[in-house]
Amino acid sequence: MKYILTLFMMALALVANARTETLKSPDGNLEMTFSLSEEGTPGYALSYSGREVIKPSPLGYTFRGDASAKDPKTYMHVSYGTVDMGSGFVFVDAVRSEFDQTWEPVWGEESHIRNHYNELAVTLAKKDFKGKVGKDVQMVLRFRLYDDGLGFRYEFPAQDNLKYFIVMDELTQFRMTGDHTAWWIAGDYDTQEYNYAQTRLSEIRGTLPKMIFNNASQHIAGPTSVQTSLQMKTDDGLYINIHEAALVNYPVMTLTLNEEEQSFKADLTPDATGYRGRLCAPCTSPWRTVMVVDDARKILASRLILNLNEPCALEDVSWIRPVKFMGVWWEMITGLRSWAYGSRLGHGANTENVKAYIDFAAEHGFDALLVEGWNEGWRDWFGNQKDEVFDFVTPFPDFDLQGLNEYAHAKGIRLMMHHETSSSVVNYERHLDEAFSLMKKYGYDAVKTGYVGDIIPYGEYHYGQFMINHYNRVLKKAAEYKIMVNGHEAVRPTGLCRTYPNLVGNESAMGMEFRGRVLPHHVTILPFTRLQGGPMDFTPGIFEMDMRKNNPNSTQQIHSTLCKQLALYVTQASPIQMAGDMPKNYEKHPEAFRFIKDVALDWDKSVYLAAEPGDYIITARKAKGSDEWFVGGVTDENAREMTVSFDFLEPGRKYMARIYADAKDADGVGNTPETGSESCAKYEIKEMKVTSKTRLKVKMAPSGGFAISIK
Amino acid sequence: MKYILTLFMMALALVANARTETLKSPDGNLEMTFSLSEEGTPGYALSYSGREVIKPSPLGYTFRGDASAKDPKTYMHVSYGTVDMGSGFVFVDAVRSEFDQTWEPVWGEESHIRNHYNELAVTLAKKDFKGKVGKDVQMVLRFRLYDDGLGFRYEFPAQDNLKYFIVMDELTQFRMTGDHTAWWIAGDYDTQEYNYAQTRLSEIRGTLPKMIFNNASQHIAGPTSVQTSLQMKTDDGLYINIHEAALVNYPVMTLTLNEEEQSFKADLTPDATGYRGRLCAPCTSPWRTVMVVDDARKILASRLILNLNEPCALEDVSWIRPVKFMGVWWEMITGLRSWAYGSRLGHGANTENVKAYIDFAAEHGFDALLVEGWNEGWRDWFGNQKDEVFDFVTPFPDFDLQGLNEYAHAKGIRLMMHHETSSSVVNYERHLDEAFSLMKKYGYDAVKTGYVGDIIPYGEYHYGQFMINHYNRVLKKAAEYKIMVNGHEAVRPTGLCRTYPNLVGNESAMGMEFRGRVLPHHVTILPFTRLQGGPMDFTPGIFEMDMRKNNPNSTQQIHSTLCKQLALYVTQASPIQMAGDMPKNYEKHPEAFRFIKDVALDWDKSVYLAAEPGDYIITARKAKGSDEWFVGGVTDENAREMTVSFDFLEPGRKYMARIYADAKDADGVGNTPETGSESCAKYEIKEMKVTSKTRLKVKMAPSGGFAISIK
Repeated sequence: MKYILTLFMMALALVANARTETLKSPDGNLEMTFSLSEEGTPGYALSYSGREVIKPSPLGYTFRGDASAKDPKTYMHVSYGTVDMGSGFVFVDAVRSEFDQTWEPVWGEESHIRNHYNELAVTLAKKDFKGKVGKDVQMVLRFRLYDDGLGFRYEFPAQDNLKYFIVMDELTQFRMTGDHTAWWIAGDYDTQEYNYAQTRLSEIRGTLPKMIFNNASQHIAGPTSVQTSLQMKTDDGLYINIHEAALVNYPVMTLTLNEEEQSFKADLTPDATGYRGRLCAPCTSPWRTVMVVDDARKILASRLILNLNEPCALEDVSWIRPVKFMGVWWEMITGLRSWAYGSRLGHGANTENVKAYIDFAAEHGFDALLVEGWNEGWRDWFGNQKDEVFDFVTPFPDFDLQGLNEYAHAKGIRLMMHHETSSSVVNYERHLDEAFSLMKKYGYDAVKTGYVGDIIPYGEYHYGQFMINHYNRVLKKAAEYKIMVNGHEAVRPTGLCRTYPNLVGNESAMGMEFRGRVLPHHVTILPFTRLQGGPMDFTPGIFEMDMRKNNPNSTQQIHSTLCKQLALYVTQASPIQMAGDMPKNYEKHPEAFRFIKDVALDWDKSVYLAAEPGDYIITARKAKGSDEWFVGGVTDENAREMTVSFDFLEPGRKYMARIYADAKDADGVGNTPETGSESCAKYEIKEMKVTSKTRLKVKMAPSGGFAISIK
Repeated sequence: MKYILTLFMMALALVANARTETLKSPDGNLEMTFSLSEEGTPGYALSYSGREVIKPSPLGYTFRGDASAKDPKTYMHVSYGTVDMGSGFVFVDAVRSEFDQTWEPVWGEESHIRNHYNELAVTLAKKDFKGKVGKDVQMVLRFRLYDDGLGFRYEFPAQDNLKYFIVMDELTQFRMTGDHTAWWIAGDYDTQEYNYAQTRLSEIRGTLPKMIFNNASQHIAGPTSVQTSLQMKTDDGLYINIHEAALVNYPVMTLTLNEEEQSFKADLTPDATGYRGRLCAPCTSPWRTVMVVDDARKILASRLILNLNEPCALEDVSWIRPVKFMGVWWEMITGLRSWAYGSRLGHGANTENVKAYIDFAAEHGFDALLVEGWNEGWRDWFGNQKDEVFDFVTPFPDFDLQGLNEYAHAKGIRLMMHHETSSSVVNYERHLDEAFSLMKKYGYDAVKTGYVGDIIPYGEYHYGQFMINHYNRVLKKAAEYKIMVNGHEAVRPTGLCRTYPNLVGNESAMGMEFRGRVLPHHVTILPFTRLQGGPMDFTPGIFEMDMRKNNPNSTQQIHSTLCKQLALYVTQASPIQMAGDMPKNYEKHPEAFRFIKDVALDWDKSVYLAAEPGDYIITARKAKGSDEWFVGGVTDENAREMTVSFDFLEPGRKYMARIYADAKDADGVGNTPETGSESCAKYEIKEMKVTSKTRLKVKMAPSGGFAISIK
């Protein structure tokens, strides 16, 4: 009887522990339910207008335990064990709040951003942490529910029983309600440069190997692993997008699909020793985000990722400016010249050649010229994890560092610095101050960084905590020097450009440099995924799609019309935009080139006219502080005829529109000399008067697009 | 028949491949035999006056192979395979040469060092490297045979078929001829701070666990693993010492004993990914060294390690100077004060306290004062692999950086900088230039570095290639700033101080800071082992052996007489010598303190009067550019009466000797309040005239010693 009584009381205690808290979005459409199970496992669920979106999904961690045993061979403490931080919690309290504020980004898709959410902060206690009676550890789960999605994170406040700790696993799950359609790239700890697949969740495992090709550094995270931002669509028309925001001092989360449960679990990028995170309270995880909307355009319009980041941390942002630039670059990408002085191909960044680029860029009103391959190190930099590779200050003998900067400044433009690190991060950090000092000395105010190859420190991945801290360290250090950063091969952004607006760009996805490998649907997916976290230095504006025209040794054919290249300046907003191609190719199309010269880089307002991931995007944007509008439209491999409504214009006013459209026989998909080469470049330019009542039918060729400038 | 013929011809080819080359030392006593077996395995053997010392022992490597397979789960090349570089070689040529040159070190145990050896360089070719027909790779085995030992190394010349390569294993063996007596510490990838064991080879496995105690960072390399320099003695009286010289861009070699074969095999410290070395031809291994002599004193007199290092790489060495110093240090070691500002114990490096130390050090003629705990970071620095821990430039609020340096300079001494890194090496490298610039600004010319705790980059060990490169990078950078380096917890030295004489000291073994843990025989072994590679900052001169006298909370009792502490300034030569104890303890023994004040730091000549590892050492040294001599003698736990012959003195001249000897009832081993505390400090000082004919009987107490200054 006593035994039964005890059991009963235990059960009572368990039931007593269970707890539920609900939270609604400001418009009431989204509802998040926090739950603590009888076993003390925290979880959450999410519904949209009564439709389940995220099934009840567990939250929590596994921590490293304490030293517990000695290895008989090594006499060392090796078995640290683990501490379950995914159950055994008790409820402490729940605090609710509202927030509604509008803030002004330094640059971006719109000049005013509303940050409006309802918040629930649940404090839980893990009893007798690491078996120490009475030594409880507190963890806060903070949920912010917006009209277009949910953000939540883990917080470990400063407390007596927890300071330094090691994360062995994050247990966060995202349990889906069906075999959704997904647009995804393979989960990889080292690269984001893959084409997107569009499949059902159940097809990920089978499709993933086909999406892989070799990269200078890659480490596939698992057979059903995908990266965020992950775009999905339910069969009943809901768009779900999972990502993270404010990735600081924490590894990147990839998602591992469990097909049976149709659920994703967080997979944190490990460090060289296999640990997933080394944290010190007080600390927080990044925000885990789930956007849920009933219209694809609302994903593009969402500012949830930016809103979940901290406000601007820089006092003076006057030096941060949009930059339109060209580069001594595409001729190296095409194999015409080399980054390395002394190369058989010839050295691209020689003074004479750079001057010619400066002349062209200045003549056409660009702000800057990127010069790659200017410095010592390029003669032996690739693929061998060489430690001391670049010093970032020593120019090649044929590159007149001072003279070229003076020449550029006299013509009203700046040179853009290039710091390829060859992923020898220890080496870059050793030289960082010296490198930035050199930039300031010669008047550079922006740097393109590069992380090609496997990381040094050996065993670290591009997206591990060490590297996240590195990227952010570079960003902060650059801000001290008033330098803007455009990071290539760095981590996919998570909205940190709100806090550090000198992060003006990132690559972090497959860009135009991949030429013929870029699938036609790529740029109809990027704004739903990669661009959710921040702008991309996609390097659009390639006018010569037949790479053999540049270099007879090339077999590359780019699958895009010329007009689609123009449209990208609008559909993929960025405060830095490159005109990627070579002057000689622009000289062949001066009228089309005009759009690149005209297009704005910073915006008061953006209107998403039409969008479906993997199919098409049409976006209109109003230039910041101006009455000019620009419209861009892109399509996948399918030709489309779409109607553009100009009702975004101010009613009653008359505007002049200049329309760059694919010609009738244009074709961006063709990749034979017969069909592809010429048909890519076929376009028509016309001007017409428009008002807010104008409706315009536009035809887009296969992998085509259109661009409109409106004054 | 045809088959048999083929077999016969193959056998013939194999026999034809076998090859032997012999090399003799200049005096003819040592003979080294290089052999290439029929299978193309290189090897060597060594004999001393016809007695076998090293049995035929294989040489070679295992390299990483090329990518060979894809993991079905990750789709990645993961199985790199291996390439056997320990057989399949063919002989190319053998080149012989002689060398005999005398050079002058910047500082050291003698002013002129003879470098006299016979050399054999054998070039071998590995056929069809990595299976590529006709693509041979050349490897040179360079042997240098001295009268007191052998050095050999691997060389990979610049060549078409080998540039970057990865070492998975070094196959070098040292096959012993019997169950020798050995003086050893446990093989560990992270620490050298262990007591020495004196055992037979067969007893290493059983003894090793007893020699281990916890350290802030440790990783025992294996159950029969020992560190070099490893001192051995054969039953017929030969002294054999295995070490390495010129450790540059390569991991430390520890030795793994195979008890059945009584052989040691090289075990290179792995990196975070398990690789043993990342090399790029042209390159060489460090020298593997085997000293062989018939008198223990000849080990102490050997300059083989220094000779195998490259000549001085610094053009200007005028700024390198011997330094006798005190430190704001022992009061932290004893737990009286803390390194951290704001500590409950009180902060040691406060301006007032430092001034008092400056006063005392200046009054007694010291060159410098080390101040630890002067800078921000100490409040949270230990044991958590914190990345951004110290910035090396920000003093604590109570440390007047400029004022104290001015105060010290006005009194004719310098402050010695302290850079504890907490083993966050990435962080130190980030700040190195700034840290050294600060030193120069305030007039510091020497830095004590520290590497307490596990290394960042995560997964790296203190003795892996990355860290070896780090230590050498710091050394070279310091030389640019004309800064001398005294590296603590850094790698055990291998004679690099010849090339970079600003490496004035290293810890790299258990020093006096270990107090009661230091076994009485420790300092009778260090000169045979640790000191073979370079001087040690042992921090002798502790006058108060009963640590309770310093701090009632301490239970430490140091096992040494006061005179033994004096002797260490002579038996353990170093251009930097600390008087480790606190002023108040020196004030109690002004007459004994005089020896520390008098003793020289740099020498014209050293004479090893008596030595047996683990038992005793008596050394006499002539001060550089002076007629003064200093003699020191130390014993293990056994009391000894020894006779010192003064025949090292110039015949016919008269000298005045001041003798510091253990009193009759002195006892350095006693560790009870009754026997130990008082008896440690009992000593007698007397002065007498001596000539080269003087014979002096000296009694040493248990763990005692004596010191003599001669003018």
